[in-house]
Amino acid sequence: MRPVLILMDPQGRKYPVALEESMVRVRGLGTFEAAKLLASVGRKVSVGDRSFLVLAASSRDLRDTMDRGPQTFAHKDLASVLFEADIGAGARVVEAGSGSGALTVALARAVRPNGHVVSYDVREESLAVARGNVERADLAGIVEFRQADVRQGIPERGVDAVILDLPDPWAAVPAAWEALRACGHLVTFSPNMEQVKETVAAVRGLPFVGVRTVEVIEREMEVREVGVRPSFAALGHTGYLTFARKVLDKF
Amino acid sequence: MRPVLILMDPQGRKYPVALEESMVRVRGLGTFEAAKLLASVGRKVSVGDRSFLVLAASSRDLRDTMDRGPQTFAHKDLASVLFEADIGAGARVVEAGSGSGALTVALARAVRPNGHVVSYDVREESLAVARGNVERADLAGIVEFRQADVRQGIPERGVDAVILDLPDPWAAVPAAWEALRACGHLVTFSPNMEQVKETVAAVRGLPFVGVRTVEVIEREMEVREVGVRPSFAALGHTGYLTFARKVLDKF
Amino acid sequence: MRPVLILMDPQGRKYPVALEESMVRVRGLGTFEAAKLLASVGRKVSVGDRSFLVLAASSRDLRDTMDRGPQTFAHKDLASVLFEADIGAGARVVEAGSGSGALTVALARAVRPNGHVVSYDVREESLAVARGNVERADLAGIVEFRQADVRQGIPERGVDAVILDLPDPWAAVPAAWEALRACGHLVTFSPNMEQVKETVAAVRGLPFVGVRTVEVIEREMEVREVGVRPSFAALGHTGYLTFARKVLDKF
Amino acid sequence: MRPVLILMDPQGRKYPVALEESMVRVRGLGTFEAAKLLASVGRKVSVGDRSFLVLAASSRDLRDTMDRGPQTFAHKDLASVLFEADIGAGARVVEAGSGSGALTVALARAVRPNGHVVSYDVREESLAVARGNVERADLAGIVEFRQADVRQGIPERGVDAVILDLPDPWAAVPAAWEALRACGHLVTFSPNMEQVKETVAAVRGLPFVGVRTVEVIEREMEVREVGVRPSFAALGHTGYLTFARKVLDKF
Repeated sequence: MRPVLILMDPQGRKYPVALEESMVRVRGLGTFEAAKLLASVGRKVSVGDRSFLVLAASSRDLRDTMDRGPQTFAHKDLASVLFEADIGAGARVVEAGSGSGALTVALARAVRPNGHVVSYDVREESLAVARGNVERADLAGIVEFRQADVRQGIPERGVDAVILDLPDPWAAVPAAWEALRACGHLVTFSPNMEQVKETVAAVRGLPFVGVRTVEVIEREMEVREVGVRPSFAALGHTGYLTFARKVLDKF
Repeated sequence: MRPVLILMDPQGRKYPVALEESMVRVRGLGTFEAAKLLASVGRKVSVGDRSFLVLAASSRDLRDTMDRGPQTFAHKDLASVLFEADIGAGARVVEAGSGSGALTVALARAVRPNGHVVSYDVREESLAVARGNVERADLAGIVEFRQADVRQGIPERGVDAVILDLPDPWAAVPAAWEALRACGHLVTFSPNMEQVKETVAAVRGLPFVGVRTVEVIEREMEVREVGVRPSFAALGHTGYLTFARKVLDKF
Repeated sequence: MRPVLILMDPQGRKYPVALEESMVRVRGLGTFEAAKLLASVGRKVSVGDRSFLVLAASSRDLRDTMDRGPQTFAHKDLASVLFEADIGAGARVVEAGSGSGALTVALARAVRPNGHVVSYDVREESLAVARGNVERADLAGIVEFRQADVRQGIPERGVDAVILDLPDPWAAVPAAWEALRACGHLVTFSPNMEQVKETVAAVRGLPFVGVRTVEVIEREMEVREVGVRPSFAALGHTGYLTFARKVLDKF
Repeated sequence: MRPVLILMDPQGRKYPVALEESMVRVRGLGTFEAAKLLASVGRKVSVGDRSFLVLAASSRDLRDTMDRGPQTFAHKDLASVLFEADIGAGARVVEAGSGSGALTVALARAVRPNGHVVSYDVREESLAVARGNVERADLAGIVEFRQADVRQGIPERGVDAVILDLPDPWAAVPAAWEALRACGHLVTFSPNMEQVKETVAAVRGLPFVGVRTVEVIEREMEVREVGVRPSFAALGHTGYLTFARKVLDKF
């Protein structure tokens, strides 16, 4: 499997590389010989009078170079979802909605090579954007997109995790319970505390354990010779993550 | 592969199950028939007059039921390391020091089934505790423990990630660069700002890109019918994470 | 006006001094000559084989040595209330409830020498504890305690600030508006988001401007020769502060 | 004493009013009859086809409408300094440097009517900006500006508090100790941890007690009918505050 590449300029700006054929295209920079780029991973290449490092795209790089909608998952929240829901090789995961696909790509990378992600959205446009991002990340074989409303039911059974990023996740909690295997993970993401409250109430009404809600905050540090301090820049809220695990009996 | 099990009581306390033979032992609770527990995943079982849920251990459960030293990795930091360093199936990872093995177990789970973790520590006792935790998590085939000082060199080459949890990570940065493949990830963990500063200086002196230092804060929310609010309980500092990626050329 | 004194031991523990007569009593330590202590401010005194520094009590010291109930105002929140509500010399302030008097004492100190604080509580016991703390802080002349329910009305008029620390502050918002002078400050304190929401709705229904809700977080730093870092210890939630200013016209 | 006024538009923008004569000038809005504005505190006035609320300036308003340099004290830090250093009516305070005068104005307001602030800066321009802001806040009688380097000594004696906002506060710590009365407060403000470390070392070398360093974080909440959540906006670092109290003996 050849890597997904990006080019990075000296200012740290990242340019995704579309590795479709023997020649590849980089938006804003022109076309390149694919073989030459693949042979230059970790090295500097010149394009006219500019120079770039050729990098194998990390999860962070993929997220940073995606086509995006307004509500993309932050790195810190992706990290927490993957860890807390045990998303690893071979996992079968259901996600709704697809949004712009930032979570879809992260899930798909994590379940490689033999896992599977089903990503639901009711909006045609979201599915199109997310599918484009998944394809550019070379993960199309892992993900199945479906246009449907998971609040009406999730046909999958025995899945390892269900991730809900919906305005009203509580409405899909019963369908998520049905779809999950015993000990499978439910994760919901919501910006507002009212959503959290209603979701947690729905979760507590069914056989789930380990119900926790957290906010993850990532504080960037400025480390310079003249002084070390937290960044003056933004540390804003993104949303609350609620975690729970399906069981078959209640205490 | 049979799952690692834990028992959870109605108060949420978790008891690790040592699934070694046809009969298994649970510290403080007695012995059980292994087959019966394995058939009861997600279900309630009774032990005398107490009842427990049988759970397939999650990454969180494994971390929570480990034999521990004083400086165990927190969940939030494990999540960030795994995501930011792209630790997934098949990855080859070097870690130092082993500590009590919390990070070792998380890394080993993440690289299953075909990855590999080499865990270095200079202290015999740390290696023993970490090895015990790795065995209990049924991950012994994935991890190799070595008693050595990585500041003197890391013999591995072409590894995907090097994670340093040492008092003086900067002293091992050159060895980490040598061990990493192009675009491989270096991660260091340090509680103090001075350590961060010296580490970042060492990293900037070699061909690394994407150098970032963050503090991850996880804030637990209390979600009750009478009111939603952040927890009154602790939100303490654990440490700073520094990330960087090896390249072969400098700008 | 003679200062309120405390004794501090080498571990930083503080002992309030009841300066009632020529001889003073310190709980747990015995009795002392008042004149001698007053002459030793900033100096070390010996009591048996122990030694103490004699300190003029700061606002922080007063708060730390009070008789307390379970829900005492934190320093960080006291600081924010005093600053944001412009509590200074001569201010006339209404507070409800008295609680254990931590806010009462801070308000009274801030409005000295010629201001006035009226402190309401429905519970006899709270008033007794708060009154004791105010007397020990030598502020009895500044504060008037009243047993009444401010939700039924606040008879004062033209006051500079109203501070509400009640389970249902929204129910007292109309009475607060009536009591305030034009441009006077309303402050409410609530642990839960639902309380904040209902309070803000009540405030927005009346002529108030500058409506803001904040959470103040104080992070203590460990500064040692071996390393500087945020404290490992608690950084818990206390509550949300909502601020608003009365106006006479609405836009 | 007539109040300092501001005009606030429906979007919350604040316009400082220069109340110098019978006619007053508002930058960007024109001139007004002073008597009419003073009679309209808390009320709406019309200027052409725009309308404004006339407000008596709060401490927050004064800070928000100042002429500013790049490094103005944040509200949250002003609140903490005033509270922790017991800055109240009658206090005698020394400050260095003056900066743009944000702290100077807050200190001067807090020590009214009979306190005194001496504000030092080595830069002529800072003194000019700060003096302008103090005059506009009608506090000129409380503050004395001096162009001098406090690291060379502070001639005042017996002051209640010394506040240092300098690049190298440690260099002025001995002078601050000399200037303070017994139990007087020292406060220093620094963005970087190296500055904190060197300052705390200097403080610990002299008879000071109650040495604490904190970072104050203020998190704004969005409270809307559709949902309550922390703000998506910035929550950046401003600096660390170190507090200490002078004593005459060491343990």
